[in-house]
This record gives sequence, C-alpha cells and structure tokens, in this order.
Amino acid sequence: MTLMVLRLGHRVGRDARITTHVGLIARALGADGVVMSGQRDERILEALRKVTETWGGPFDVSYEADWLSFLRKAKEEGKMIVHLTAYGLPIDDVIASIRSCARDLIVVVGAEKVPGIVYRLADWNVAISSQPHSECGSLAIFLDRLFEGKELSKDFRDAKLRIIPMKRGKKVVRLKGLEPRKDLSKDTT
Amino acid sequence: MTLMVLRLGHRVGRDARITTHVGLIARALGADGVVMSGQRDERILEALRKVTETWGGPFDVSYEADWLSFLRKAKEEGKMIVHLTAYGLPIDDVIASIRSCARDLIVVVGAEKVPGIVYRLADWNVAISSQPHSECGSLAIFLDRLFEGKELSKDFRDAKLRIIPMKRGKKVVRLKGLEPRKDLSKDTT
Repeated sequence: MTLMVLRLGHRVGRDARITTHVGLIARALGADGVVMSGQRDERILEALRKVTETWGGPFDVSYEADWLSFLRKAKEEGKMIVHLTAYGLPIDDVIASIRSCARDLIVVVGAEKVPGIVYRLADWNVAISSQPHSECGSLAIFLDRLFEGKELSKDFRDAKLRIIPMKRGKKVVRLKGLEPRKDLSKDTT
Repeated sequence: MTLMVLRLGHRVGRDARITTHVGLIARALGADGVVMSGQRDERILEALRKVTETWGGPFDVSYEADWLSFLRKAKEEGKMIVHLTAYGLPIDDVIASIRSCARDLIVVVGAEKVPGIVYRLADWNVAISSQPHSECGSLAIFLDRLFEGKELSKDFRDAKLRIIPMKRGKKVVRLKGLEPRKDLSKDTT
C-alpha cells in the first residue's frame, strides 16, 4: 500500500506555514509523499525536499495544478480517496475499513473551502472530531491511527542527520560513517 | 486532572495561523485551555474565544507574558510539565507514566527555538517521532494518545452549533431548542 497526501487550495503567503507543516507531518508520520495543489509555491516544495535530503526518505514532493484530474485518474487506477473533514464520519467508525481495503490511498486535506466534488469523489469523508479543527492535527491523528503507531519507528533511508532521543537536551548525530559531531549536540541539562 | 497547553514564543504575523491551529487542536482534542505567550496577539485570543462561544466549551484562553514564572508556579503547585520536542523520549516510552501520574498537566509547545530552561523544567520531554515535525501534529497525537481516543467524543457544553457527521455533504444544526436551520446544512451529494 502506498499513501500520498494531497494538499488542496494552497495560497501563497497565507498558507505557507500550514502547508509546510502538512508536508512535514506527512513525511514524519509515514506517508510516501505529498502532492501540493492550489497556487504553486516553489519555496515550500524546496523546503520539504531539503528536509528529506537531510533527514532521509524516501518521500516524494510534487505539484499538480489540476487536482481534479489527478483525483479522477487515481480513482481509475483503483486508488481510494480519503478526505479529512470535520463534516465526515467519525474516524473510529471507518478506520478499520480504510485499513483493511489494502489499496493505495490518497488522503486529501483542504485549506479553507473544499469544493463539493471532493466530498463526492471521496470513498471516505473522515472527521477527526466534529469540531472546528486543524488540517495538521487531523492529518497527524489519521496517519497515527491508520498505521497504528508503527510509523513512529519508521526507518528513514539515506539520512545525513539523526536525532538520538534524550530525557533532557538535544543530541544529533551525523551519519554516513562519520563520527558524531559534538558541535551538533547540545546538552541543555 | 486538568490539562492546559502553553504555546511559547508566538510571533505576530509569522506564527498567526500555526498558533491558531495549536489553539483549535487543544480545544477539539480535550485540553481545558490554552495559554499564549510570546508576542501578545489579541486577534488570536478573540478568534479562539469566539470558536468556544459558537461551538461550546468550557475552554479557557489566556495570555501570559512571563511564561517562565508561569511554569515555575505551576511546578510549585504540583503540576507536571510535558514539553513536546523532537529531541525528547519516544511517546511510547513515557505516555503510560504521564497518564498514570494523575496530576494536572501543562503541555508546552514551542515555536522555532525553545530556551534550554524548558527542557530542564519539563518532567517529560516527549518526542512524537524524532523527525523534523510540526507542533500541531505533535500536540494532536499527544492528546489523542493521552486521552486514548476518548477526547473525540467529548461533549461540548453551551454550543450554539453542532456538526452532524455525514458520509457525504455537510450538516450543521443550531442548538438551544431551535429547529435545525436548513440554510446551515448543505448536501453536496
């Protein structure tokens, strides 16, 4: 199964940080890539590619101007569409079906207003609480529930840096056969 | 047990939407309130209070200029401090201890750089994956894991509006004894 996150309706400036966070969450929590749509924003694409170059992947970052054709083609190819929206069905009611469908998934997260066609194309409209919410929060919980927490121990390939978990302080090691660089680590205790 | 989210280091403009999302996530996922710090930003406080007025609570929204005194006082009062950071210990290793401590919690989420004192004051530095991440994503998963999913069915009191989950389309009802208003609902099927 592959899972791609589709970010709809990006607006340069206004959405820059939220869209970046959507990409970071997708990568950190086990998605295979993110597809940006809306206004084209090279800086975000570059920033996410650079994160992958430094911290490992694989994680695909791309842009699609015509998200509707992208979704229709995905459906023709047998992929299933999950749309995260506060108006959808509770995640507890649908996550088992989504997990067991064993098909490639496109997970759609919108910006402010999502066109009605997305609700109709989606195989599942999924609510992570029926409250005004954040697409970042919804995406994170969706991925964590879908992958049952296993995504948190995902092994990222070809990473140049890796964080070593610590009770206190910060420890980052440089990989690729080099010794840990002391100047990258900081013990704040 | 009460749980307050402390948002550190807010910068007007740059962090406006991320900080708003932190507040929305805190409210939607069972926190008792959010405390903003950094640059004072009345628009965000007002926006979050308005969400609570419309969609229910209780959910407390406040501002603290001196977050360090706030944290020290919280510790003196016996509250426990959780700091969400990619450098911390994996959530799987600590969530059971946090849940079972049965004490009031302050959950700290930073903006770009978090001062070292926060790592030292924290009873737990917790990583939601040791990857570059989003404080929104981390907060959402932390709350979902802490409350074991029960937060998604939280009953919000004194709500004026409520979303009725649907397979497709949007349905919002007006509460307080009034009939559902058709113009609030939109069936996109």
